[in-house]
Amino acid sequence: MELRLTSDEVITLKEKEVIYSALKRSGIYLTASCGGKGTCGKCKVKIIKGSCNVISYGKLTQKERESNIVLACQAIPEGDILIEIPKESRLAIGDKIAIARTKDLVHYLKSYGVDINPAVKRLYLELPPPTIDDNISDLERLKRSLNEKGLKDMRFSYGFVSTMADTLRIANWNVELTYIRGDDTRYEAIFLSPIDTCNRRFGLAVDIGTTTVVVYLANLLTGEIIDIGSTYNSQMRYGDDVITRIVHATESNGLDELRDAVVSDINTIVDSLMARHSIQSCEIDAATISGNTTMSHIFWGLNPGSIREEPYIPTLNRFPEWRGGTARLSINPQSPVYTVPCVASYVGGDIVAGVLASKMHRNSEIALFMDIGTNGEIAIGNNEWLMTAACSMGPCFEGSGIRCGMRATSGAIESVKIDPHTYEPSISVISGGHPMGICGSGMIDAISEMFLTGLIDQKGKLVKAKTERIREGEDGLEFVLYSDLTHHKDIVLTEVDIENIIRAKAALYAGIKTLLTEVGLTTDAIEKVYIAGGFGNYINIKKAIILGMLLDMPEERFVFMGNTSITGAYLCLMSEELRREAEDIASKMTYIELSVYRSFMDEYMSALFLPHTDMSQFPTVTGMLK
Amino acid sequence: MELRLTSDEVITLKEKEVIYSALKRSGIYLTASCGGKGTCGKCKVKIIKGSCNVISYGKLTQKERESNIVLACQAIPEGDILIEIPKESRLAIGDKIAIARTKDLVHYLKSYGVDINPAVKRLYLELPPPTIDDNISDLERLKRSLNEKGLKDMRFSYGFVSTMADTLRIANWNVELTYIRGDDTRYEAIFLSPIDTCNRRFGLAVDIGTTTVVVYLANLLTGEIIDIGSTYNSQMRYGDDVITRIVHATESNGLDELRDAVVSDINTIVDSLMARHSIQSCEIDAATISGNTTMSHIFWGLNPGSIREEPYIPTLNRFPEWRGGTARLSINPQSPVYTVPCVASYVGGDIVAGVLASKMHRNSEIALFMDIGTNGEIAIGNNEWLMTAACSMGPCFEGSGIRCGMRATSGAIESVKIDPHTYEPSISVISGGHPMGICGSGMIDAISEMFLTGLIDQKGKLVKAKTERIREGEDGLEFVLYSDLTHHKDIVLTEVDIENIIRAKAALYAGIKTLLTEVGLTTDAIEKVYIAGGFGNYINIKKAIILGMLLDMPEERFVFMGNTSITGAYLCLMSEELRREAEDIASKMTYIELSVYRSFMDEYMSALFLPHTDMSQFPTVTGMLK
Repeated sequence: MELRLTSDEVITLKEKEVIYSALKRSGIYLTASCGGKGTCGKCKVKIIKGSCNVISYGKLTQKERESNIVLACQAIPEGDILIEIPKESRLAIGDKIAIARTKDLVHYLKSYGVDINPAVKRLYLELPPPTIDDNISDLERLKRSLNEKGLKDMRFSYGFVSTMADTLRIANWNVELTYIRGDDTRYEAIFLSPIDTCNRRFGLAVDIGTTTVVVYLANLLTGEIIDIGSTYNSQMRYGDDVITRIVHATESNGLDELRDAVVSDINTIVDSLMARHSIQSCEIDAATISGNTTMSHIFWGLNPGSIREEPYIPTLNRFPEWRGGTARLSINPQSPVYTVPCVASYVGGDIVAGVLASKMHRNSEIALFMDIGTNGEIAIGNNEWLMTAACSMGPCFEGSGIRCGMRATSGAIESVKIDPHTYEPSISVISGGHPMGICGSGMIDAISEMFLTGLIDQKGKLVKAKTERIREGEDGLEFVLYSDLTHHKDIVLTEVDIENIIRAKAALYAGIKTLLTEVGLTTDAIEKVYIAGGFGNYINIKKAIILGMLLDMPEERFVFMGNTSITGAYLCLMSEELRREAEDIASKMTYIELSVYRSFMDEYMSALFLPHTDMSQFPTVTGMLK
Repeated sequence: MELRLTSDEVITLKEKEVIYSALKRSGIYLTASCGGKGTCGKCKVKIIKGSCNVISYGKLTQKERESNIVLACQAIPEGDILIEIPKESRLAIGDKIAIARTKDLVHYLKSYGVDINPAVKRLYLELPPPTIDDNISDLERLKRSLNEKGLKDMRFSYGFVSTMADTLRIANWNVELTYIRGDDTRYEAIFLSPIDTCNRRFGLAVDIGTTTVVVYLANLLTGEIIDIGSTYNSQMRYGDDVITRIVHATESNGLDELRDAVVSDINTIVDSLMARHSIQSCEIDAATISGNTTMSHIFWGLNPGSIREEPYIPTLNRFPEWRGGTARLSINPQSPVYTVPCVASYVGGDIVAGVLASKMHRNSEIALFMDIGTNGEIAIGNNEWLMTAACSMGPCFEGSGIRCGMRATSGAIESVKIDPHTYEPSISVISGGHPMGICGSGMIDAISEMFLTGLIDQKGKLVKAKTERIREGEDGLEFVLYSDLTHHKDIVLTEVDIENIIRAKAALYAGIKTLLTEVGLTTDAIEKVYIAGGFGNYINIKKAIILGMLLDMPEERFVFMGNTSITGAYLCLMSEELRREAEDIASKMTYIELSVYRSFMDEYMSALFLPHTDMSQFPTVTGMLK
């Protein structure tokens, strides 16, 4: 019995196994904040062929049921089956990504030439029990043994000392000391535990995205990913993008609300992962957090207010390794929580993690790393130098500020083709059915197709005479992508929308060009382009080039990396050496504040065309237009 | 208008001033946990001559009112007045003590040849405000300025970082950094504040006694004691002595109860001191705690369980300088709380503080330091060496285990004289009136008088024929000190009582002798005897020698030191150098566990006589008996 995916992957099914588990066994993780109980309604899959025994439809609408959508955790295939996984159900780990599968992560880690060597270490200690002749205090006894092992001047926190005496006696003086090297060179004791015969040690890698929170539960001894959890970042209820969240954080109690939201998101996942694998919170020795600078600040309860105001100053970029209790995580309160270092207000730990995951800092070839979202963060460099900048693209690719814009969820138009003769668009909708709006990848497709077919000119203006689908709307001219006669709601792209999208792509392109100019290089120097982020995975490279959003270069130079933030967090969790590399990347990266560069404004103005004022930068597109 | 004390001190009164305030102005502090509001009923004084306008009698009994007792905080003298301050109303700062008055403490501090130099320091910093060209993070900006001032590698806690950004901006980048050198050599940032024009800095010295808690509020800039507060240690509700408290601590929730009790005692005092002097908790930069090892453990919420069980191991003797928030003190949560280091389970920070306060560690003459309470802690040595031990004396001098025993409070017989011919005792009672029991100093007086007059023999056995006051009681023979015909309650000392007291004095004497033998010295080598502790102040030296409790040496060699625990805490608060001296004392002191010394048992057996089996050790007493 086989489970076949529309992406051509085949998974052998076990008897009476739900689809969710079968996928997970193969390293394909669906979003499921309830942990597979059928209550969150997030693990939707579409049955293309074959049938399932459905335990429960949960929150699915009648319409979804009619479209053969089921909850993967509630559907047991009744034979060979072919399914499609909608984008919104998948964790931000795509098909085409370089580090696709979590089961490959251990190999990927080893490809750095490092061993599994978490910064958090354990040491077995057999202390001589105290006697009347050897009656030094417990702490002195511990220090004496550590001195004998060459670990001098260890630092002991209050939390450590307050439970030490009992543990020593319960353990009959044979203990395991968990410790770490602090942000200075001194060691810090983390906690003491009786010598553990089951020899289990776990760690968490956490990616705090503005939109999604992803958690990897890893075995610290083997590097293996035991399980994954993810959910939307509940901070969304206070605003979609980083800027509105910062504004909310500066309002009374806002920071607490935002912090509580994301921490409880993480804890909900962690609690369910622990329950599922019978892991105690005290067995989680360490956590590594990766997020943009604002997310990192909010996670730690630090006011991000000044990140938003010129001159854009974060409280800190290098976070000391504070403890689980301080972070309010439901792990051992003594466990260290490492934050991947940030570079500047708009280049955060997620980008440092991304560069680490791309290995561009290790190679001599010059590469470009980009993470496209509300902000387009870019980094250029190699093993000798690294430059970075953030381009404020606005939230249009996430659906905001676009009349019919929406996120890449059910009902979003995700790709568009336009017939060059009839100008009739053919669309594909996430989860199928009637479209409810258009998401980022759909916008890129639509505009590049409209440009290629001559429906818009180089400035993005609609050419009215071409088709009746171009009409006068509330905001001026608009193109009707889809007419919904039943609901009287048409899906359109207006000239204002197109202008917004062009501004966004121009900002990204101008940022890349400015960085290149700053280091005296031309586009040709770039040998690899690493595209990170969930959105990035679904971009059609060719169409993004036509739009003038990406550099016009051979498609094979582009590498989709998926969620590099979580990959980097995992690498920092599992290897002290790679953590040091992340620190090096952060200090090596020269941050360019684009807004103060006159050349950036010039580049930006030149890029406000399709694909660009200077067509010589887009030879392929020039060719297509001919 | 004058206020005259029975101890011959004279204080000039201000118009309409209550006695409590007049005394305080002169550095005489009464116990008053309510801070002078008339509600706690503790600041009792007796008017011997003159009259007062009494605002309220508060909790005073009819009997007390008839004895001319008033509450000092509620009584305004109407002219010249002569008062007596009962012992229990005074804070443990006696008349005869070497470091008598808090107003002399600054001079005493300076007599060490050190300046006022608290370990907690402040530094003025004018940071350049960030600009778009100088846009490093707040923490990097702060570190850069510190580097320029030579303060490299400072450590920043979460609490510091979490409030830093706002403070920097409120203060317009001109700030005061409060910092300290950690227990390693690295500096630690404590907190940041806007530059303070009123230039106020305060600190707390706290003595956590098993019975009493005393707090000094000090000006950190001048060393001046601004005010004092004290109260009974509410842990008493869980047991009178250290051992019963340890037992309670090991019961469920017991440790929390004990910790809460003492911390809220301290906080009640601190809150009232702050309110009285209009001081904010954030202005208190530091606190220093001194207490025995068990009190220090409980204060920090550390289980003292193993202190009680052989081989008597504390969790730690050197306490890291944890913060006010961790200590749960109502001061700035970032402020460091220093704990005077302990030596062993039964020689605590109070003894280290006492040795520091005695200066014996600085002089070449060999001195003996003793703190007499439930445990008699002793230290012998000079500027080259120090030995220490604890003698388990039992709680008899604090009234426990003695049929009519009581603490030194109202109604206790505090001194006794016995007519050598009639054997009639004349007694003096604290606060006057009918006696309700006998306290430690009364016991010493009574037994030495009984011995001198032949009412008891060398073994402490009552000689029945001598007087009708010796009679057969429930526990065997007893001596009637006072017959209360009205209440049918006689105050007696039984043979069992006398045995207990002899055992206690023998333990102390044997401890001293064992320590001397251990270092190969004889009694003559001791040039000074420093007696610390509240009880110590009221001992009649001559009578204690007759009892065989103190070494038979000229009275002028004995120095009453009062509460040296709080004095030492104050010295450590005001001077980094003296704090280091305290650390040196603690590491220099060789602790002797008396219970394992065979010679201690021999000494103890020999001391179970009055004054001693070996009369040659007590030439003065031998003379008296002749």
